[in-house]
Amino acid sequence: MFLTRTEYDRGVNTFSPEGRLFQVEYAIEAIKLGSTAIGLKTKEGVVLAVEKRITSPLLEPSSVEKIMEIDDHIGCAMSGLIADARTLVEHARVETQNHRFSYGEPMTVESTTQALCDLALRFGEGDEESMSRPFGVSLLIAGHDENGPSLYYTDPSGTFWQCNAKAIGSGSEGADSSLQEQYNKDLTLKEAETIALSILKQVMEEKVTPNNVDIAKVAPTYHLYSPSEVEQVISRL
Amino acid sequence: MFLTRTEYDRGVNTFSPEGRLFQVEYAIEAIKLGSTAIGLKTKEGVVLAVEKRITSPLLEPSSVEKIMEIDDHIGCAMSGLIADARTLVEHARVETQNHRFSYGEPMTVESTTQALCDLALRFGEGDEESMSRPFGVSLLIAGHDENGPSLYYTDPSGTFWQCNAKAIGSGSEGADSSLQEQYNKDLTLKEAETIALSILKQVMEEKVTPNNVDIAKVAPTYHLYSPSEVEQVISRL
Amino acid sequence: MFLTRTEYDRGVNTFSPEGRLFQVEYAIEAIKLGSTAIGLKTKEGVVLAVEKRITSPLLEPSSVEKIMEIDDHIGCAMSGLIADARTLVEHARVETQNHRFSYGEPMTVESTTQALCDLALRFGEGDEESMSRPFGVSLLIAGHDENGPSLYYTDPSGTFWQCNAKAIGSGSEGADSSLQEQYNKDLTLKEAETIALSILKQVMEEKVTPNNVDIAKVAPTYHLYSPSEVEQVISRL
Amino acid sequence: MFLTRTEYDRGVNTFSPEGRLFQVEYAIEAIKLGSTAIGLKTKEGVVLAVEKRITSPLLEPSSVEKIMEIDDHIGCAMSGLIADARTLVEHARVETQNHRFSYGEPMTVESTTQALCDLALRFGEGDEESMSRPFGVSLLIAGHDENGPSLYYTDPSGTFWQCNAKAIGSGSEGADSSLQEQYNKDLTLKEAETIALSILKQVMEEKVTPNNVDIAKVAPTYHLYSPSEVEQVISRL
Amino acid sequence: MFLTRTEYDRGVNTFSPEGRLFQVEYAIEAIKLGSTAIGLKTKEGVVLAVEKRITSPLLEPSSVEKIMEIDDHIGCAMSGLIADARTLVEHARVETQNHRFSYGEPMTVESTTQALCDLALRFGEGDEESMSRPFGVSLLIAGHDENGPSLYYTDPSGTFWQCNAKAIGSGSEGADSSLQEQYNKDLTLKEAETIALSILKQVMEEKVTPNNVDIAKVAPTYHLYSPSEVEQVISRL
Amino acid sequence: MFLTRTEYDRGVNTFSPEGRLFQVEYAIEAIKLGSTAIGLKTKEGVVLAVEKRITSPLLEPSSVEKIMEIDDHIGCAMSGLIADARTLVEHARVETQNHRFSYGEPMTVESTTQALCDLALRFGEGDEESMSRPFGVSLLIAGHDENGPSLYYTDPSGTFWQCNAKAIGSGSEGADSSLQEQYNKDLTLKEAETIALSILKQVMEEKVTPNNVDIAKVAPTYHLYSPSEVEQVISRL
Amino acid sequence: MFLTRTEYDRGVNTFSPEGRLFQVEYAIEAIKLGSTAIGLKTKEGVVLAVEKRITSPLLEPSSVEKIMEIDDHIGCAMSGLIADARTLVEHARVETQNHRFSYGEPMTVESTTQALCDLALRFGEGDEESMSRPFGVSLLIAGHDENGPSLYYTDPSGTFWQCNAKAIGSGSEGADSSLQEQYNKDLTLKEAETIALSILKQVMEEKVTPNNVDIAKVAPTYHLYSPSEVEQVISRL
Repeated sequence: MFLTRTEYDRGVNTFSPEGRLFQVEYAIEAIKLGSTAIGLKTKEGVVLAVEKRITSPLLEPSSVEKIMEIDDHIGCAMSGLIADARTLVEHARVETQNHRFSYGEPMTVESTTQALCDLALRFGEGDEESMSRPFGVSLLIAGHDENGPSLYYTDPSGTFWQCNAKAIGSGSEGADSSLQEQYNKDLTLKEAETIALSILKQVMEEKVTPNNVDIAKVAPTYHLYSPSEVEQVISRL
Repeated sequence: MFLTRTEYDRGVNTFSPEGRLFQVEYAIEAIKLGSTAIGLKTKEGVVLAVEKRITSPLLEPSSVEKIMEIDDHIGCAMSGLIADARTLVEHARVETQNHRFSYGEPMTVESTTQALCDLALRFGEGDEESMSRPFGVSLLIAGHDENGPSLYYTDPSGTFWQCNAKAIGSGSEGADSSLQEQYNKDLTLKEAETIALSILKQVMEEKVTPNNVDIAKVAPTYHLYSPSEVEQVISRL
Repeated sequence: MFLTRTEYDRGVNTFSPEGRLFQVEYAIEAIKLGSTAIGLKTKEGVVLAVEKRITSPLLEPSSVEKIMEIDDHIGCAMSGLIADARTLVEHARVETQNHRFSYGEPMTVESTTQALCDLALRFGEGDEESMSRPFGVSLLIAGHDENGPSLYYTDPSGTFWQCNAKAIGSGSEGADSSLQEQYNKDLTLKEAETIALSILKQVMEEKVTPNNVDIAKVAPTYHLYSPSEVEQVISRL
Repeated sequence: MFLTRTEYDRGVNTFSPEGRLFQVEYAIEAIKLGSTAIGLKTKEGVVLAVEKRITSPLLEPSSVEKIMEIDDHIGCAMSGLIADARTLVEHARVETQNHRFSYGEPMTVESTTQALCDLALRFGEGDEESMSRPFGVSLLIAGHDENGPSLYYTDPSGTFWQCNAKAIGSGSEGADSSLQEQYNKDLTLKEAETIALSILKQVMEEKVTPNNVDIAKVAPTYHLYSPSEVEQVISRL
Repeated sequence: MFLTRTEYDRGVNTFSPEGRLFQVEYAIEAIKLGSTAIGLKTKEGVVLAVEKRITSPLLEPSSVEKIMEIDDHIGCAMSGLIADARTLVEHARVETQNHRFSYGEPMTVESTTQALCDLALRFGEGDEESMSRPFGVSLLIAGHDENGPSLYYTDPSGTFWQCNAKAIGSGSEGADSSLQEQYNKDLTLKEAETIALSILKQVMEEKVTPNNVDIAKVAPTYHLYSPSEVEQVISRL
Repeated sequence: MFLTRTEYDRGVNTFSPEGRLFQVEYAIEAIKLGSTAIGLKTKEGVVLAVEKRITSPLLEPSSVEKIMEIDDHIGCAMSGLIADARTLVEHARVETQNHRFSYGEPMTVESTTQALCDLALRFGEGDEESMSRPFGVSLLIAGHDENGPSLYYTDPSGTFWQCNAKAIGSGSEGADSSLQEQYNKDLTLKEAETIALSILKQVMEEKVTPNNVDIAKVAPTYHLYSPSEVEQVISRL
Repeated sequence: MFLTRTEYDRGVNTFSPEGRLFQVEYAIEAIKLGSTAIGLKTKEGVVLAVEKRITSPLLEPSSVEKIMEIDDHIGCAMSGLIADARTLVEHARVETQNHRFSYGEPMTVESTTQALCDLALRFGEGDEESMSRPFGVSLLIAGHDENGPSLYYTDPSGTFWQCNAKAIGSGSEGADSSLQEQYNKDLTLKEAETIALSILKQVMEEKVTPNNVDIAKVAPTYHLYSPSEVEQVISRL
């Protein structure tokens, strides 16, 4: 059976007899190898927390960026191929700036997510902005607009969903279960920080320190926590 | 026999010796994996009802959009790859807006459907708007124009048919049989709502709630039911 | 022998050692799977009759269009992939309109047929209007111009022939024999209608009704029969 | 040996180890399947005669065109894929018209033949006018210019030769032998007509009638014989 | 060994592990199948002589052109694919005409040869003028410019050499030996004519006649011998 | 297992079933064959040191450039394919010059690194500046801007990290261990020079001389050490 | 092992699992089949000497050019595919002329070498100037600029090195050893001529004559030795 599967899975954009797109499924596998990221939406705003794998003590921890700002009111956490994520984020930054320039107001979080997914969907099309393979990355997009706070989750197929809470990456299975147990809509932002970090702690193989996790919030503007702010959250665990 | 079939089925746009286009047939398979959608045409208007698979309690049900507005007078339900459907719907929205702008009147439902299918047919052609593979999605297009209400069904080959009632997706076989038994041309819109939802209930594996189904009507304008309106229809089952 | 054939037949536009173009031959196979269509030329005009396969009682029979108008004086019946036929017909409609606009007179039936076949021949060429595979459709083109009534038959290779009578599709072999027996040049249009429908009746597996056949004439302008007009012809069988 | 040959013969424009271009050779095979055509040059002008395969009594014999006019002073007979021949003839018609327009005089027969062969040679080049495979057709080009009457023979490789007499198509081998026996430079046009038709008669499997052969001459202008003119030649056999 | 060779030799422009370009070598094979051509340079000018294979007595010998004029002061003899040679010669004619127009003087023989080879080298590059495979032809280019008479030899790899005498085509091996024996720098043009034809006679399988050889000289302008001039040379053998 | 891997690893930009991009991994292998390079960041500036493989005594050592200036304030050391590195450095030089011209100030080290990685990521995309395969080179980018000194490390996937110290090339594994032991943030530039060279000495198979190593610093401007300056560092070992 | 290698080595620009680019390595093999060339740098200038393989006594030795002028102050010797070398040299000639025109001064030898290598590196990229395979040629580039005399060596990978002396081609291994023994920086130009030719003599299979070697110097301008000048050097051996 494995042999016949290989007949279909190298064409980047070809259906198998069962109606599957293997290259997209393989890109999703790439994310299962990635570090874990978690997002939680509260009424006060959205919290993002990510594991940073610092493979050598000589690496500068702050240069391993797994949470990035897209616009004042939107940030995202990522898991998978970081270079691919940078391309998507750069595209989203241009889109949101263009929107502000053209309409004099911020782009909504859903439109920004749609713009990212449009680019992700068009892999293999040969036009200027698209890639020749699926983007090997999932994003958790946290934002705040006229509809209040919102959290979106995207995958390499170019599909997106709005969530209350979501985990991606190698530890996502366990983390998602924990999120379902602990999440409720009346969490404060502070409680969300503690839950995100305590779940991340469970799936990480080492002690949590300000060096190997990043936390950010959009409440209502994007803010990446300083090492001492992260230390404060750690101390609450 | 299976081996010789694989000789032909990877070329996205190549005939097999029997005159078949396998990539289109495989895309149709993709739809058989999709969630079920049902459409019914009555004299008062058209009803669309879809199953929403909420894979996690943390997903925002309203962000799983399987029924979308194309124009004031046209909406559609979908089954298959959602990201592909979004591309088609976006294309149709631009076409209907252009038509209103150029001719000062709404585009007919058939022309809109034709425009969607033109795009679907041209996969593998390498031009700017087309995909490098068939669109892996079927649509039920509900509309109302000078000819009154109408319901169209499209498949990945770019073919379309006008129907009185139609089901697509993984439960379509059973649902189509039920529709043939229960459909008649004199149904009221209200009766159509009840039939659509009762058939959907049969093919779904879980209890029907406002969270896991969506209902919309075009009568004569598009309207997506609020959770309480859906609850009302559920209560009539 | 079958194995060596597969070496050549996937290249869309490549000769086999015997000088054959397999993709074109396979496209011709696609037509043998299609519904049957019949055309007869009389001195009064041309009659077209097609079988419509209504796979579900919920389909709107009138939306299964297998006879289409190209211009006032030209119509065509089709067998094979309907979406492909629509592309060809749309191309012919633009050509005939352009001709009227440029020269102030209708395009001849032969020129229209040639224009259709030019497009069909250029598959695999990569230019804007052409397909990446042969068009999987045959057409019977009925028209009336300064040379009187005429009937053309086209196949996926881009070749065309002028005929007095012709059948295409899955029942074409039997229907062609019957046509040769019953056809003569002095038939009235009314007799032609009866012959076309009686032959169609032989090759169809179900009872002939206004729902599952379409009849049209070009005499000298295109006219698609209404259900009651079809009923009248049925009653004469 | 056959197996290793298949390694080379699918690349449309690739040399085999022996320095052969297989796709061109296979296209030449396509012509051996075609109907027979014969050309003879006399001092009075050139005669062309072709076999027409009327596969059904319902086909209009006059619509099976295997001899076509290129310009007033040039015509051609063809064998092989008729749709390919039409493309070449159409190209030649444009070239000769452009020449008349630009230089105020007819194009010579050799220049016209060269223009046809330039197009035939460039298959697989990907530019706008060329085909992605060799043209599967041979032509006998009959013309009359300032150098008097001339007859050219072209093959799918884009090569051409000037001849006194030549046969192409499935019966060419036998017909060429007969031509060598019967041809001499002092034939009258009338004698040439008779020889052409008598040789055609030998290679055809059915009785010769005005329905299944066409005759044309360029002497010095192109003229396609009417059925009664053909009947006259038949009567002389 | 043969099998592994086939792994490399179909890529038109790919090195084998031994650093060879097989498609070029196969094109060179094509020339070994061609008719023989001979060139000799004397102080008075250059002589070219070619064998013409007249496969049928009905062919017009003068239409089998294997020696062609490029400009007043340059001619060339060819062996291999004649249609390819015509493309190269046509290219050279345009180049020499452009040069005359731009600089008011004839192009040198070496520059003309270089221009031909530039085109030959660029096969497989996909630009407008180049071929998708190597040109299957060798040329002997005879010319006369400010440096006196010169003779160049080109092969399908786009390489060229200046020679005193050279034979190409199927009989080139024997002819080259004979040339080395008989050539010296003090030959008169008349002696060169005789040597060229006597060597050609040795490698041809039939009697030499004005019908099956062509002779030309550039001394200092291009002149193709008339049948009677050829007859005169034959009479001297 | 090896056999199935080969099914995926030749497509330059295709995921394997485990979500891996083999061509990028193979390019990383190319770097493991390269010479060793070392970078160390101190508060006073950054030191780069590279091994130069002088394969012949006749090579000019100064022409083997493995450390290059990008701008006044940025330099880089490289390991892998030198010709690829030159393309990346040339691209970075243009970017930094354009930045100075447009904004009147130097480009930051991170932006310069991002610009290099954008180009590296886009291999296989077919646009003008990108390569058709991954760049087979890793860079250590040393710079000094408004944020003080910084050291970046890039790999062929287009990913980059900020480091305090890093080794690349064939000896990187051992060198990285030594760096972790010996590095601390309070090193002086002079101490960093000594550490870099002593570690390089361990991984090189020959005696260290000014001919087979290069040293450069950015403190705060780029300076490549002269042979005598290198000799001085060697004397301190 | 050989079999798995063939899986990677036909893609012109693809890494093997060990990080190798086989097409470049095979192009380097092409050079090992080429004739030997030698370069020596002295304080007075640079000497180039090449073996010329005159395969037939009828070839004009002066037309076998293996040393060519690029600009007044730069020349180069080559080994490998001569037609490829001509393309590179022509490119370099245009670059140096453009530089003179734009900046009013000669291009440096290093910049000229870099320009050649940029073109060589970009094979397989599909842009206008580049080749679809690596250039199968190595060059020894001799020049003289503001930095005095210099000698560069380039290979098909687009890499270059500055050398004091270097041999390329089939005899390069033995010649390089001899050069290392005999070279010192204080050689006079005359001594360098003698060494170059004596080493060439060792690797050639025939007697050295002015017909089968070429010598040139750049001191400080390019000069190709006349046969009598070559004879003088031979007499000193």
